[in-house]
Order: sequence, then C-alpha cells, then structure tokens
Amino acid sequence: MITLYDMPDSGNSYKVRLAAAHLGRPLRRVTMSSRDGSTRSPGFLAKNPIGKLPTIELADGRFLAESNAIMLYLAEGSALVPADSYDRAKMYEWLFFEQYSHEPAIAVRRALFVYEERRHLATPERLAQLLDAGNRALTVMETRLAGHDWLAGDALSLADIALYAYTHTAEEGGYDLALYPGIVGWMARIAALPAHIGLSA
Amino acid sequence: MITLYDMPDSGNSYKVRLAAAHLGRPLRRVTMSSRDGSTRSPGFLAKNPIGKLPTIELADGRFLAESNAIMLYLAEGSALVPADSYDRAKMYEWLFFEQYSHEPAIAVRRALFVYEERRHLATPERLAQLLDAGNRALTVMETRLAGHDWLAGDALSLADIALYAYTHTAEEGGYDLALYPGIVGWMARIAALPAHIGLSA
Repeated sequence: MITLYDMPDSGNSYKVRLAAAHLGRPLRRVTMSSRDGSTRSPGFLAKNPIGKLPTIELADGRFLAESNAIMLYLAEGSALVPADSYDRAKMYEWLFFEQYSHEPAIAVRRALFVYEERRHLATPERLAQLLDAGNRALTVMETRLAGHDWLAGDALSLADIALYAYTHTAEEGGYDLALYPGIVGWMARIAALPAHIGLSA
Repeated sequence: MITLYDMPDSGNSYKVRLAAAHLGRPLRRVTMSSRDGSTRSPGFLAKNPIGKLPTIELADGRFLAESNAIMLYLAEGSALVPADSYDRAKMYEWLFFEQYSHEPAIAVRRALFVYEERRHLATPERLAQLLDAGNRALTVMETRLAGHDWLAGDALSLADIALYAYTHTAEEGGYDLALYPGIVGWMARIAALPAHIGLSA
C-alpha cells in the first residue's frame, strides 16, 4: 500500500486524498506538518529533497512529491485523466495554472489568516496584492465554468480536484466567491459526487 | 502546423522551442511580449484566458497555454516522456517543482536585473529573499544531479528541458552556478546534444 505523508489542513495534501477517494484507492496516512520543522529535518529531506508535503512512499520504498505529480501517478489510466489528447493537455494546463497562479495567491492569503505564525506577514500591501492575484485566478476559472460543467473536457478530471482543493476554502482567505457563480455551481457539482470527501475526512 | 505565440527572451517560451527541436517538429512562430500589454488585450485573452506566453494554436484553431502543458502535449509518446511510470511521475514532479519553486525565484530575480521597468521592484529585501529561494531550488537539483546524469530516469526528458531553460541563465540573476558542479555538468550535457538550440536560436 502507498503511504501518504499528509498535512491534514493543507489543500495540497487534500488533493491526493480526494483523488484517491475517487479512485477507490486506500492510502496509509502519516500525519506531519510543514509548520513544526519536521519537513526540513535531515531524515525527511533524505526521502524527499524538495522537503514539502504531501509526499508519498511507494510499497518498494521510493518517494514522490508535488501534489499534482502524485495525483497524475495515482490516476494514470483512470477516468480522472481525459482520454482525448487535447482535453488531457487542458488538464495539464489547469494543473500548472493551479500551482503557478492560483495556489500562491489563494492558499497563501488563507494561510496569512489561518496560521498565527504567519500573521506578521499580513501587511496591507501584501494582502491587497494577494487579493488581486487571487481574483485574477478566480476570473480565469469563471471564464471556463460560466459555460462548462468541468475544467477540462466534459467530465471530472484531476484539474477539477486540484483547483477545488483551495478554491473551496478561498473565503477563509477573504475572497468573495459570490462574485463567481460558475465556480459556485461547479463546487456544488463536485461536493455532490458519490465518492466525494471533505477536507477534514 | 502549430503556431507558437512566443516571447523570444523568455525561458518559458524557450522550453517549447527546445522541446520542439528535440522532437524535430517545426513551429510557426509569432513574436509577442508580455511587457507591452498585448497579452492582456481582449483579443488575446479571448484565445487564452490565462493571458500569458507561451501559448500555442493548433491547426484547428484551439489554444493551449502553460509552457509545461504545451511540452507534454507536443512530446506525448516520444522519448522525452519516460516509459516507466515512476520515472514519468518523477518527470511530472520536476515540472511542478520548476513552476512552483524554481521559476518564481530564478526567473523573477533575473527579470529584476534584465528588464528596466522591473528595477524599482528590486529592493534589497526582495533580492535577498529571491536569492535564498533560488539557491534552495538549485540545491534540490544538485542533490539529484551530483549522482545522476538526468533529472528523471536515465535519459533526457521534459524535466531536463524545463529546468534548463531558466537555470542556464541563472547567472544573469546573480546566482553563482560554480557552487553547483552537478548542475554545471548537466548543463554541458544538454548543450552538447545534437538537436540542442540556444535561447536566441
């Protein structure tokens, strides 16, 4: 069985748990936190030089990091990866968009509010900049979701799982999702799927 | 033929040109710049809501953005994508690492020096923070490359092309690559490949 080195309240870790739930794939969970220094310890860095969570350990002892890479590994050959090559490429596009343009704004702004040790970083200038960047990312999603049920192709894919993870907690970071009706409808569709699990499941 | 909306001195655009060179695949190039506002114009945003370069246009008029997604689309089924599923997952890991941990430090610090309109952002605090983040990313690469010829598996893959693009210009951003002999050797291996092209080719 695959072991997930998991940070329970991290959207990046949640992506892996949510994808595994849709795949019907059990994971052994080992709880860690990037907030207590353990991911920068020599022992963990030897397993995972990137030093971040989530990381998985395969049955043979090999490691893999980066949430979206882990999902791609687990979901290969499943319905979560579109069969059509263009739809699949659009899924990749959303996965890279998520890590470059969405998570660094929306997850980071949420962390400034949620994690006490980050509060000193929450200057008015930084909060305004992250609000603007996050709203730009949400606008890109809304452009797609105003006219389509899913981000890539015509069914749930890893793109939806990856973007759902931090979008559904965006209000904790001060974003007003009521401005984005396409996103609100899409989140409801995801939450209604039979295999869905919540962040704290 | 595929059209590449290309920013000539951008490492992200260079990735696509370098991958296409290795694939022996011609591209029609349309030169644009993210510095003159044209990527935020309504016309371009209609094609590519992400509003960034590179973007490709397929023969049938559909668009695809995000440099690493474009490479994955072009290289599917080629030797640039490892056949082994774990090696392929490690390639994905490096691609996401590149966009989350490498490019936002190394490319951004270079841009502060190279692009005059960014110079006012180059505060001592920001430069120090980017230097630190970039050196952390280079250290992750060195950990792998000190003992292996290639980033994922035992042959050139998209991981190497993606990380080469901004690593080979890191000294323009003030990083000292002499500290990383594994990276220096790897860059020389890439530059010596028969299909290699330079950034300004």
